[in-house]
Amino acid sequence: MADTLIKRMSTADADFDVALTKLLDWESASNPTVGDVVAGVLAKVRAEGDAAVLEFTQRFDAWQPENAAALEIPSSRIQAALDNIDADVRTALETAAERIRAYHLHQRQESWSYREADGTLLGQQITALERVGLYVPGGKATYPSSVLMNAIPAKVAGVDELIMVSPTPKGFVNEMVLAAAAIAGVDRIFTIGGAQAIAALAHGTESIPKVDKIVGPGNIFVATAKRQVFGSVGLDMIAGPSEILVICDGKTDPDWIAMDLFSQAEHDEDAQSILLSPDAEFLDRVEASILRLLPDLERADIVRRSLSGRGALVLVKDIDEALALSNRIAPEHLELSVDNAEQLLPKIRHAGAIFMGRYTPEALGDYCAGPNHVLPTSGTARFSSPLGVYDFQKRSSLIGCSATGASELAKVASVLARGESLTAHARSAEYRLLGEDDE
Amino acid sequence: MADTLIKRMSTADADFDVALTKLLDWESASNPTVGDVVAGVLAKVRAEGDAAVLEFTQRFDAWQPENAAALEIPSSRIQAALDNIDADVRTALETAAERIRAYHLHQRQESWSYREADGTLLGQQITALERVGLYVPGGKATYPSSVLMNAIPAKVAGVDELIMVSPTPKGFVNEMVLAAAAIAGVDRIFTIGGAQAIAALAHGTESIPKVDKIVGPGNIFVATAKRQVFGSVGLDMIAGPSEILVICDGKTDPDWIAMDLFSQAEHDEDAQSILLSPDAEFLDRVEASILRLLPDLERADIVRRSLSGRGALVLVKDIDEALALSNRIAPEHLELSVDNAEQLLPKIRHAGAIFMGRYTPEALGDYCAGPNHVLPTSGTARFSSPLGVYDFQKRSSLIGCSATGASELAKVASVLARGESLTAHARSAEYRLLGEDDE
Repeated sequence: MADTLIKRMSTADADFDVALTKLLDWESASNPTVGDVVAGVLAKVRAEGDAAVLEFTQRFDAWQPENAAALEIPSSRIQAALDNIDADVRTALETAAERIRAYHLHQRQESWSYREADGTLLGQQITALERVGLYVPGGKATYPSSVLMNAIPAKVAGVDELIMVSPTPKGFVNEMVLAAAAIAGVDRIFTIGGAQAIAALAHGTESIPKVDKIVGPGNIFVATAKRQVFGSVGLDMIAGPSEILVICDGKTDPDWIAMDLFSQAEHDEDAQSILLSPDAEFLDRVEASILRLLPDLERADIVRRSLSGRGALVLVKDIDEALALSNRIAPEHLELSVDNAEQLLPKIRHAGAIFMGRYTPEALGDYCAGPNHVLPTSGTARFSSPLGVYDFQKRSSLIGCSATGASELAKVASVLARGESLTAHARSAEYRLLGEDDE
Repeated sequence: MADTLIKRMSTADADFDVALTKLLDWESASNPTVGDVVAGVLAKVRAEGDAAVLEFTQRFDAWQPENAAALEIPSSRIQAALDNIDADVRTALETAAERIRAYHLHQRQESWSYREADGTLLGQQITALERVGLYVPGGKATYPSSVLMNAIPAKVAGVDELIMVSPTPKGFVNEMVLAAAAIAGVDRIFTIGGAQAIAALAHGTESIPKVDKIVGPGNIFVATAKRQVFGSVGLDMIAGPSEILVICDGKTDPDWIAMDLFSQAEHDEDAQSILLSPDAEFLDRVEASILRLLPDLERADIVRRSLSGRGALVLVKDIDEALALSNRIAPEHLELSVDNAEQLLPKIRHAGAIFMGRYTPEALGDYCAGPNHVLPTSGTARFSSPLGVYDFQKRSSLIGCSATGASELAKVASVLARGESLTAHARSAEYRLLGEDDE
């Protein structure tokens, strides 16, 4: 039925709150069997190193590397991929990379310090991570744009060595992904994937170096392996399905809005596309556009399943109510298809990325506007941020007390340490008290 | 035997690398039984709310709250704790709080943006988390300084509501902790703990509000519960035992260095204190100080177990070798008890906090120097940072394309999206291409 392709809702509906909660509900599958399999893979790679990685690669990726050295793609092969891709694709990748780099340069944080009147120095020294692992899924869902978005912030931060891993099922290598890696400055590439790749990066093997942090998306085995190594190695967030929330005043071409919703829905059937508008007649027109344009889409089946299962066109009272709803949803992507979108920013509390105005569809941000497309999903924008240079830098506190500064602080520390019954702390501080002679 | 109290090592030893690796080895106990118990608690609190929290509090904390309302400490009671503590303790807490606040103000990050020549706007909007939960362990290991260190950065960030939870086994309430909470600006306090408190904060109950992030240390049940809610709520790191690495040129009073090592060791028997010095005779003198001063310590038993199990006095070739070792260890606390410590900073890559000079014992940083005492342990300083204001702020990317900017970006996005077979992305971008008439 045409009219059931995408849900229609109104904030005036009596059951709106319940219906919205149900619409947004998403819980990543946690599968005990997967957990056990992954734990076994992690333990074996940790104990046996390369031999285990070779065995799992043969078993899970259906190709047989001759030896551990054959797991690495030589740099000449990576350069060849770059040399051989179509010129227009290479130009597009290079343009995107340059814009991503320029934007991320603004995120680089610098060390800072200040000196108090008595000479005491306080501050933070900021340094880059030494070695980072980048997971890139294999097969058809291999995205060169994702290589750029994950690798460039790391290199801008000053990471010394960036190790990419990507499975090559049945030996299939994606040339555009290799080209993107070359442009982004990836240092080494290994053709491994799954939990065995996460294990190799987290613990190191004879051939694969141990890294300090692992970033990049992956399937349930990869996500479960990341969960299991949590704590021993740095991690990015574990992403849920992608979502977009569009707020439109009713004055954008409805075909544009329909296509913006499609661009999210085509990722996979769990992706979520929601439109909020105070204009009921405009919602009708968008629905008509959806019905008219959908059959012509290459990924029409996925889009249909996504829109009917998780999409909605929602009538709101006004733009303010739409913004309040948006803050409740904390969307990964928020598109403000209105006049003067910038004026709405102070009212937006939680969103991964905010696309302002009718000329800013999410697709531009996905590829080349500059900001990162790795964004917090499933409401986690309430507490997390887009991937950025700051994810590849870390801080060390700096404390350098002058003799007089130490003496003043020691008086306070002594009282508090004794209040906590930590008397060695107190005595350590008290040694630095200046006597009458010293002062 | 006196000479076996603390290990002596030298980087010149043939087996030094192996011995160091063994000394540093630490893996947090993961206990499947605890995992199952915690999963049960989380599920029940999620399903039954307050009723489950009341039941678990009675069972695990050995006191019987009358009803859910009795789980909250009224603000008048908190204020009374502040009014009634000793004046010198109150002054010390207030002085420490003021210094912590002043330091953390330097960490506050501001929104930024820039406009390109064609009018396109790019940037990041930075906002505070709305609601944060602070876990404070109960019983004897309840530290008011920890309340200040966790709460103040959140309030400096602008967090709207800070909810503290702390179990009160057998109904015991720590007055100094309540006073610290009042000074730090904690908004509400609930007397709950364990996995049930983490569950209540992560999912919310009728009486206890759901938070966006949970910070603060806890026992294995708390740590396991945090691991299990990972992803649905923001978390700080899960801390291992505390450690200090002291580098000394041999010119500091050996009693001072011994006491600095004690101040770490007194935390618990798993704490780690290591001294590096190029002066073998100085190591002898520190060892003598340890033997002489130890019997007089209030927590001598814990210190003895910690030093004999995990401590070491290590002879190094020179200060440069000590710094290289420090980068390998990535210590939580690094004390540079040398002349001109600041000049060594460029050589330090990984450390949670760096204490510079003979007048900067770690104890001053633990209480009142200003920087945070919540620091990355067990080598995680390789990829993580001290707790800070940045942990309570998050970013939203800003993208606002002008019509001409969008048209240029659409050309690039179209090529890349088609390269990834995401044609709805391509079409969404292509709608924004300007025709010849528009340009």
